[in-house]
Amino acid sequence: MMVHPRDEIVRTLKTATNVLVITHIHPDGDALGSQIAMGNVLRSLGKNVFLYGEEPVSHLYRFLPGSTQVESVLPDVSGFDCAVALDCGDCSRLGTSMESLLAVHPFVVIDHHTGHKDFGDLRWIAPDRASTGEMVYDLSESLGAELSFETAYCLYAAIVSDTGSFKYSSTTADTFRIAGELLKKGVKPAEVSGKLFDNFTVKRLNLMRLVLDSLQLYASDRLAIIEAPRDFFVKTGTCQADAETFINYPRSLDTVKVAAFIKETESGLVSVSLRSKGTDYDVAQVAASFGGGGHRNAAGLKLGETSIAEVREKLLVKLLPLVTR
Amino acid sequence: MMVHPRDEIVRTLKTATNVLVITHIHPDGDALGSQIAMGNVLRSLGKNVFLYGEEPVSHLYRFLPGSTQVESVLPDVSGFDCAVALDCGDCSRLGTSMESLLAVHPFVVIDHHTGHKDFGDLRWIAPDRASTGEMVYDLSESLGAELSFETAYCLYAAIVSDTGSFKYSSTTADTFRIAGELLKKGVKPAEVSGKLFDNFTVKRLNLMRLVLDSLQLYASDRLAIIEAPRDFFVKTGTCQADAETFINYPRSLDTVKVAAFIKETESGLVSVSLRSKGTDYDVAQVAASFGGGGHRNAAGLKLGETSIAEVREKLLVKLLPLVTR
Repeated sequence: MMVHPRDEIVRTLKTATNVLVITHIHPDGDALGSQIAMGNVLRSLGKNVFLYGEEPVSHLYRFLPGSTQVESVLPDVSGFDCAVALDCGDCSRLGTSMESLLAVHPFVVIDHHTGHKDFGDLRWIAPDRASTGEMVYDLSESLGAELSFETAYCLYAAIVSDTGSFKYSSTTADTFRIAGELLKKGVKPAEVSGKLFDNFTVKRLNLMRLVLDSLQLYASDRLAIIEAPRDFFVKTGTCQADAETFINYPRSLDTVKVAAFIKETESGLVSVSLRSKGTDYDVAQVAASFGGGGHRNAAGLKLGETSIAEVREKLLVKLLPLVTR
Repeated sequence: MMVHPRDEIVRTLKTATNVLVITHIHPDGDALGSQIAMGNVLRSLGKNVFLYGEEPVSHLYRFLPGSTQVESVLPDVSGFDCAVALDCGDCSRLGTSMESLLAVHPFVVIDHHTGHKDFGDLRWIAPDRASTGEMVYDLSESLGAELSFETAYCLYAAIVSDTGSFKYSSTTADTFRIAGELLKKGVKPAEVSGKLFDNFTVKRLNLMRLVLDSLQLYASDRLAIIEAPRDFFVKTGTCQADAETFINYPRSLDTVKVAAFIKETESGLVSVSLRSKGTDYDVAQVAASFGGGGHRNAAGLKLGETSIAEVREKLLVKLLPLVTR
């Protein structure tokens, strides 16, 4: 008889004592919400838990209760008898300490990314789930853990983050079932949404104005590109994280099928976010052709030793045939 | 024993034969979605149904399956043995045919507005519900009606409209329960959300850029004002409806407690939308002092024979003390 990978993971977690809980670099709401919630669940079962992330938690997510628990100095990993990696589709996204982290065994992986690349010892990969937060919710039920308000809050934030507040096609009846259960723990939807979405600073609004002014439309307005060169960030006193959701503006144009956001990162790379609508435009494939990855409707890539103009040209070669065929 | 008003309405609807189904003027997604869904439910039970609305359905909602059923010529009302008014908080919002409509008996009212003003013969008023769509869902269950895909689609659109995609504080565990059930009928969340929210035109984005450039901050960034003089609309080829949601941008600034959007209307009036956050800033009172109205966190007013600059000054007199006290 096949054992569901979740059940095997439950068994493993039950016997673990010192658990390292991690997620991917540049963590978003689903990554951090799932990480903190998983930590709380394991702690409620009497485990020692260490939450590690190589960067300090971004100011955008510091509202998550328990976000201060995430430590950015990794202790000697020989003290851990289990690691849990959440929302991480590729071991390279574990960051610069990847090798030390992967030295912990058993290494449990819980992820929902399409195109997940297998790593670790025990894996529960569910690309049909809208968020890793939902998977942590199910796991907490299987573990018999009582969810605290703080844990419910983090999981709700995780779900809302990764579904764009229940707007993305990944949203399922199950997503709603779990969201409803989390509300019963006292989570206030407007509060969490307010923290996730009403956190614009004036600086950030200024950045948005510059970025929107860069809008270029191609292929009878079916393809939209916006850009953020380094000096946009410098001029407005903002950082890359401030530009996070801007791709939604070109994406929301009625005629647009594919949208791209090209930005120059602090490290001199050019990063591209790609979004598409419906099932006809697979941007994951486009991203993959540049060594990037992601989902059909949301993908990304990074290129070195290049410029925004060069990347735009390369993208047009791939995207124009995609939107016009 | 008290009979729940819903049960009385169920009894009434079961015996009705020719039912007039209506909603408020300038109907939004909840109003139209509920109206069409209610019509479908009654038709599935063998009733003759007439959907009336004095204006043709706005282009924003023509994606709702069945929207063409809404007729804008009212037949002789003596043929109806029941009327159902959905999402209408005040009989004056029934429009210019109010008197004819109210001549139908029994007149059933189903609404969720806080501050609902009673009218009609049988009323189910539930201000704790996030949308009238949820109430129609419950009613369809009590009536034993099988929900079609089209009906589920309309109800889902109704819920998403009136909760801002599950972001507003009105969202409850019940909202999620019903949303989940509607998905099981085949509704695709991304499709409905796309139709409701991804309908930005390039013209509208251009208008938004102009309006955002008008941002003024006062009182240590606690008060934000944006403006749209007539020439913004002319320059971009847009109309007033295109500016509908722009107040959300100043409102979403982290430091802002109160936001105002002043625009010149086609009819030469100056209209003001006011938004506030939390319980400390009652913008309904400010609106009322100018003859306007609304809720604590969302209100509006209109002034004649004046200019944007004059209205801005008058507003500052009221709003500066409000945000700084």
